Amino acid sequence: MTELEKTGAAAKAAGRVLSVAGTKKKNAALEAIALALEAGSRRILDANAEDMANAEKAGLKKSFMDRLLLTEERIAAIAAGVREVAALPDPIGEVISMSDRPNGLSIGKKRVPLGLIGIIFEARPNVTVDAAALCLKSGNACILRGGKEAIRSNSAMVDIMREALAASELPADCVCLVRDTSRESANELMCLSEYLDVLIPRGGAGLINAVVENAKVPVIETGKGNCHLYIDESADLEMAAEIAENAKCSRPSVCNAVETLLVNEAVAADFLPMLLPRMKKYNVELRCDEKALKILGKDAVAATDEDWATEYDDYILAIKTVGGLDEAMEHIARYGSGHSEAIITSDYARSQRFLSEVDAAAVYVNASTRFTDGGEFGLGAEIGISTQKLHARGPMGLRELTSSKYVIYGNGQIR
Amino acid sequence: MTELEKTGAAAKAAGRVLSVAGTKKKNAALEAIALALEAGSRRILDANAEDMANAEKAGLKKSFMDRLLLTEERIAAIAAGVREVAALPDPIGEVISMSDRPNGLSIGKKRVPLGLIGIIFEARPNVTVDAAALCLKSGNACILRGGKEAIRSNSAMVDIMREALAASELPADCVCLVRDTSRESANELMCLSEYLDVLIPRGGAGLINAVVENAKVPVIETGKGNCHLYIDESADLEMAAEIAENAKCSRPSVCNAVETLLVNEAVAADFLPMLLPRMKKYNVELRCDEKALKILGKDAVAATDEDWATEYDDYILAIKTVGGLDEAMEHIARYGSGHSEAIITSDYARSQRFLSEVDAAAVYVNASTRFTDGGEFGLGAEIGISTQKLHARGPMGLRELTSSKYVIYGNGQIR
Repeated sequence: MTELEKTGAAAKAAGRVLSVAGTKKKNAALEAIALALEAGSRRILDANAEDMANAEKAGLKKSFMDRLLLTEERIAAIAAGVREVAALPDPIGEVISMSDRPNGLSIGKKRVPLGLIGIIFEARPNVTVDAAALCLKSGNACILRGGKEAIRSNSAMVDIMREALAASELPADCVCLVRDTSRESANELMCLSEYLDVLIPRGGAGLINAVVENAKVPVIETGKGNCHLYIDESADLEMAAEIAENAKCSRPSVCNAVETLLVNEAVAADFLPMLLPRMKKYNVELRCDEKALKILGKDAVAATDEDWATEYDDYILAIKTVGGLDEAMEHIARYGSGHSEAIITSDYARSQRFLSEVDAAAVYVNASTRFTDGGEFGLGAEIGISTQKLHARGPMGLRELTSSKYVIYGNGQIR
Repeated sequence: MTELEKTGAAAKAAGRVLSVAGTKKKNAALEAIALALEAGSRRILDANAEDMANAEKAGLKKSFMDRLLLTEERIAAIAAGVREVAALPDPIGEVISMSDRPNGLSIGKKRVPLGLIGIIFEARPNVTVDAAALCLKSGNACILRGGKEAIRSNSAMVDIMREALAASELPADCVCLVRDTSRESANELMCLSEYLDVLIPRGGAGLINAVVENAKVPVIETGKGNCHLYIDESADLEMAAEIAENAKCSRPSVCNAVETLLVNEAVAADFLPMLLPRMKKYNVELRCDEKALKILGKDAVAATDEDWATEYDDYILAIKTVGGLDEAMEHIARYGSGHSEAIITSDYARSQRFLSEVDAAAVYVNASTRFTDGGEFGLGAEIGISTQKLHARGPMGLRELTSSKYVIYGNGQIR
């Protein structure tokens, strides 16, 4: 057995205990974890300082360092997040359906944990605790594998969580960390089919693609977001400009930000000049097709075909004029990542066609794509946003970390 | 573009049309298919006769030939199956949830098709039509790839279905067949991530394992069934013998048949002699651990560890004595495939522990595992039995061939 297989076996066994632990024990463990993180903040900050010093030596860029940094406040927020998860309703044990069959069998369908969840993520050490808390609450053991730059911070936090679990009534192995941060360990984790029930990658497109390409464990793809905003000829242009600004500029680094604006030719000459000052405020680079470029002139540059396929995650917006709804939907079908798509319109029939025909996790009429989020959708918490259609689609909360089980009560039935 | 990529693109485009086609058009197409299959039975039987002749030349075994054979009656049954699918409720468009958020957004969650489904299967040509009908009704296009031994039969049936679709109001490419039956074409299909939303293998363990090992498309694993029956010390032994006979002998080749009997030591000496004549009736080979062998003597043989891990799909039963419920559940956790597991008991607490702690798609008290089936569970039809926990678990009906989509109605909301 390799080191990771041993971890897999231990976590799987812990998961069996956790799966039937009941809400009270799980919530008590979460509260113990929150307390332990607060009490252990010095230990976490010391470990994080080492990670930060190494990152600085390695010359990693500022935005990366920002994500890596932990502070007293951030640790307090992480602990508060754990308590929020404890306060959420327990999804486990819900009876999804129950019926009596003509032969007298009672067949129920119950919500149960998935079992053992692998989570591969990048530099943000807060994911370590968030993910562990969501897994615990939903009755799942987890194996976490963070980026090598955060290994000391992650180790400190996982050690603290495991100590808290051991002191509560749940096995420490409910939360495991892969401490070997080599590429090989990531690949081994992706293929640990004997133990893992599912693998969730959280991070940039490179990580997601590597996991989808290499994993033998079932994967839930998250977070690819090439999102579009289509301005219909009947749109309230003031609303459209307001939503475009919000969807692009309120937080361009996240997956629900808009990357390409599609604008109906009939209103492009009116709309784009209205949009321009809002984009200038944030120094957004505008990459335009020919017609839009004519309207915006020196304030824009020419787009290439590659732009339509790119998730910038930055202050860049691609702009394309289209002849109508069909052309807009064709473009979205070709380039969209199936995350979030919006139409701004005052036309009823076109709003309905957009909602029905555009194939994405979330489709909007007259609202910003930035709302695609577990909290905003009322799920209470989120482990990621699925852009695949299997198992879960869109923001994934606790319920998306569960499976089901048929429970059949008989009294001697044979077939 | 390869031939298969072209098929993928065409089927994906057809799927977009089908996804919004509505129940009436889909049912009309299914009825047209049923009629066309009946009208075209001569063409199908001629093609099947060629397949049968080749199979005979190749010296394939009788059970294989039986599965390959089509007759007038079987074609009539296949057409009737299509009409049954047409009569089922349409899962598409169901609103799963809908709520208004404090900011005025109305957020609905709707049931939508998965998109394009790949199905890889073995020799049974009836699967071709069954699978296509279930996909059509649930709004999904499909690419079918059957075994090479049935290629002529499958081609004839798919041609007939495509003609019927073209004559109805749906694109023929809603149902596509991979006519190249080389191993390479199977591998290419497993990696057609750009077009396929999911891949469902239907067949023996070899096929399932090859798909799980090689696929880059999300897979739903089906049909692995190493099922157990545990006879508790409090069991009604007459009921236990009746259920054991049914679970083993009523159809040993299917995945919900029992492979290993676990019997509590306290009742083994009473129970096994009661079971023996029922097993002798079917010439079932009994492979026993030491204690059971002592009881059954010359009527049994010694089991090896390999027996506990084997899905016989045959008139063979492994028998193991256990000290109690915990040992039985340990054995099931170690060797079970997560399909169907049953306890025979009159003890309330142990029945509840078994239902709660055994991790399988279907867990039974006092009934035969043979009931794990879409029809028996009231799903109306079945495309397979999932033994994984992601997306679908247990018998998969039309609903399991769907995904969901968030539909958001706003009036200018920004975040």
